[in-house]
Amino acid sequence: MEINEAKAALTALQAKLSAYNHATALIYYDGVTTAPRGTAANRGQTLSILSEESYRLSTSPETLELLEFLDAHPEDLDEQEKRIVFLALKSVREMKKIPLDEYVAYQQLVVEAEDVWHTAKEKSDFAMFAPYLEKIFETNRRFAGYCAPEKDPYDYWLDQYEDGLDRAQCDAFFSALRSRIVPLLQKIAARPQVDDACLYGSFDEQAQHKFSLALMKLMGLDLDHCGLGTTEHPFTISLGSHHDVRITTNFKADCLASSMYSVIHEGGHALYDMNSDDSMAYTLLDGGVSMGIHESQSRFYENLLGRSRAFVETVYPHMTEAFPGLAAYTPEQIWRAVNRVEPSLIRTEADEVTYCLHVMVRYELEKRIMAGELAVADLPAEWNRLYREYLGVEVPNDREGVLQDSHWAGGMIGYFPSYALGSAYGAQLLAKMKETVDVDACLRKGDFAPINAWNREHIWQYGCLRKPDELLTAALGGAFDPSYYTEYLEHKFGEIYGI
Amino acid sequence: MEINEAKAALTALQAKLSAYNHATALIYYDGVTTAPRGTAANRGQTLSILSEESYRLSTSPETLELLEFLDAHPEDLDEQEKRIVFLALKSVREMKKIPLDEYVAYQQLVVEAEDVWHTAKEKSDFAMFAPYLEKIFETNRRFAGYCAPEKDPYDYWLDQYEDGLDRAQCDAFFSALRSRIVPLLQKIAARPQVDDACLYGSFDEQAQHKFSLALMKLMGLDLDHCGLGTTEHPFTISLGSHHDVRITTNFKADCLASSMYSVIHEGGHALYDMNSDDSMAYTLLDGGVSMGIHESQSRFYENLLGRSRAFVETVYPHMTEAFPGLAAYTPEQIWRAVNRVEPSLIRTEADEVTYCLHVMVRYELEKRIMAGELAVADLPAEWNRLYREYLGVEVPNDREGVLQDSHWAGGMIGYFPSYALGSAYGAQLLAKMKETVDVDACLRKGDFAPINAWNREHIWQYGCLRKPDELLTAALGGAFDPSYYTEYLEHKFGEIYGI
Repeated sequence: MEINEAKAALTALQAKLSAYNHATALIYYDGVTTAPRGTAANRGQTLSILSEESYRLSTSPETLELLEFLDAHPEDLDEQEKRIVFLALKSVREMKKIPLDEYVAYQQLVVEAEDVWHTAKEKSDFAMFAPYLEKIFETNRRFAGYCAPEKDPYDYWLDQYEDGLDRAQCDAFFSALRSRIVPLLQKIAARPQVDDACLYGSFDEQAQHKFSLALMKLMGLDLDHCGLGTTEHPFTISLGSHHDVRITTNFKADCLASSMYSVIHEGGHALYDMNSDDSMAYTLLDGGVSMGIHESQSRFYENLLGRSRAFVETVYPHMTEAFPGLAAYTPEQIWRAVNRVEPSLIRTEADEVTYCLHVMVRYELEKRIMAGELAVADLPAEWNRLYREYLGVEVPNDREGVLQDSHWAGGMIGYFPSYALGSAYGAQLLAKMKETVDVDACLRKGDFAPINAWNREHIWQYGCLRKPDELLTAALGGAFDPSYYTEYLEHKFGEIYGI
Repeated sequence: MEINEAKAALTALQAKLSAYNHATALIYYDGVTTAPRGTAANRGQTLSILSEESYRLSTSPETLELLEFLDAHPEDLDEQEKRIVFLALKSVREMKKIPLDEYVAYQQLVVEAEDVWHTAKEKSDFAMFAPYLEKIFETNRRFAGYCAPEKDPYDYWLDQYEDGLDRAQCDAFFSALRSRIVPLLQKIAARPQVDDACLYGSFDEQAQHKFSLALMKLMGLDLDHCGLGTTEHPFTISLGSHHDVRITTNFKADCLASSMYSVIHEGGHALYDMNSDDSMAYTLLDGGVSMGIHESQSRFYENLLGRSRAFVETVYPHMTEAFPGLAAYTPEQIWRAVNRVEPSLIRTEADEVTYCLHVMVRYELEKRIMAGELAVADLPAEWNRLYREYLGVEVPNDREGVLQDSHWAGGMIGYFPSYALGSAYGAQLLAKMKETVDVDACLRKGDFAPINAWNREHIWQYGCLRKPDELLTAALGGAFDPSYYTEYLEHKFGEIYGI
């Protein structure tokens, strides 16, 4: 093989995989936005064929030979090519450890499980979902055993979502958070509650849609390459490359903050995905590098910027134009309302202070199930017990309890900690950004350009080129330190609650 | 090779091709319904890769060997398998005559040409589209030469859209139509015009959407497997199998009939596609067999049923519920209005009497360009001359003239005659259906079940199992005779115009 020929083959291989990703991502997107409701089996048929094709292409002897040839000639590769070969080889070697039939069966299991989970959630019927969840946990344990028999299975999956992460780090991180968040929460509980009545009422869906597009434009999203859809659960997805990204939201007629902050959250994911360097399109480097870094961006825009006083002031004229009834409130009242702290049942609607406690519940439960210390059948009772212990709330049913999130149904075991990590990364990134960018002044002017430029320079442009910890350390100019996050929470909510 | 092994391989091959079709069809559908407007290049990249994969799969030596093996063992094949092998071999042998690079280049040309055509139409600027159209005609001539060097190139393409069709048949067919339609049109012109003011006004888009869904239900479409989208140009598309079909329409705020009859027309296509026998899903037999038969169904529902007095009476309560202003008119007035005859510029909005004249213009022009007797540069002038000659109207600009249809931009040369053929097939099918089904009584009750059952039994269930002419002859119980159509027109419009 000639080196240039091999490089061309690598480019073609990645383009093909991107095309398969485009197809499968769009079929998924269509399924949750537009498709008639009886068409799931038809999508399942196509998805299982395309995922098998993609698997075969990724793991074929020719692919392995190509990657090993390139790996043996590092002197001929540039930085991007080296990283691509590294990532591809790592992935192929792991995939080849999983038998094809088990891989395909798992893809089908997950599609079915998501379907069953939807119904189970509607009916608040954990028992109908439990057999699927058992198989999912069992398969995740088995696959971890195939791929990294020397490792604890849960550590293996934590590392898949956040390169280098393990239980020891999570335990230390969560323990640091709890030691500061729990006392803060106790102080808040002792103070008069913030009035958030302004957020509830009747909000026309078309007006919410128009307002969402205004928010997307304001935060610097290029609407020529980023679409907005409506789904039960908001998410962000790239189709084939960072040139076509879709975010979704869910409009609630009686609560404006729900769609508003999900749009800003998903918009943060989209900004990250869309701003990989253009040279990375149709390569393995395109898009965000890890879930923790991804959440650092989404929760950065949602909370650190979106729930700041300056941002609420800037967005106030758009809000009152879309919903004239809000003009009865001041920007200060709305800012306080969107920052009301109250232990509650639903993670995605939790305030910044209690949010990580929701994550900790899931982390504890995943860890114990993966370790074989907790049975899936006992999950609801344990869920409810931990909500009582961590958040002081009673879970009235499984719909608002253990069935609320789709992650486990989608096979994502080990994902949840990245939400909390991302929140904490974000606070430290903001502190670093403020050394050179007057963030408050930008927000007050509604000018996201300097903020986005900083994120692009330090995070977005790299796509998957750098390892998450290297990327983060370089951006922060030092080691990650969760106390930035807890200090941010103490300072902000200290002001709001007069502590 | 063992016969059962070969049959399993054939099933797997077809399932893969269906999966590619699902992906490419959905990417197209997304592009014209939902995608952000800057994402065409991203879709082009994926579509060219997937169409190349699909081409390679269809034409690989293994595929050809498989098909030839099966073809050599007809005694082991059932009727469906024989037809699949026949169709696949025919298609592979033709595809292999077109060099892969030219095939892929043509796919890209057509994607670009559709893009340029949109702008050209907007700007009414034929010159910007002409170079693409020249290449498209040139490529169609060249491909016809590769595939059937013994045949006239236009005959080759006519046969592609309607098995067995050639210029001689078209000439005879169109001449038979003209000899009856032109005198009818002259008689109509001499009579007082029908008042269609009731169809114009202000029609809320959401109400039109709701009304469209009511129409789809009424005509027996299963909304669990048939979706409705909004696009500039209405069309019908299947995604992977007949289990997921989408139709689209375009809501015009000032004209109800436009979306109403496009929904019924596309709904006719969808009924045909969705009612292939279930055993045909994920095989080459799934869906309609030819464009002529397809149009016989779409124009059957749109005109023969949809513009009948009985149907308008049945749909009247839905119409007046959606648009209370229409209650000022009687069903009889609305029925007359939707049947107003008037030579006009736009084919898709033409009445039943003048419709085929629009088609004849396109047929004449295609035929002459393919024969090298007309240059693409001279197309607008010739278009305008023929509209003056056939329809007596002056074409004010290319947007409402030669640029109005997307077919040529999409590479479909030889498609147009099937619209007229389908209309004529439909009239004869209706006469046959009426021998055993009281169609008017069904329409008056709003009960499409017996009508759909007849179409399912005689047409739909066969998918591509029978050749179009065999299918049609069996359904009609005799040879195709266009005089059923002209008699239908003379009778119906004779009544409306008091001739």
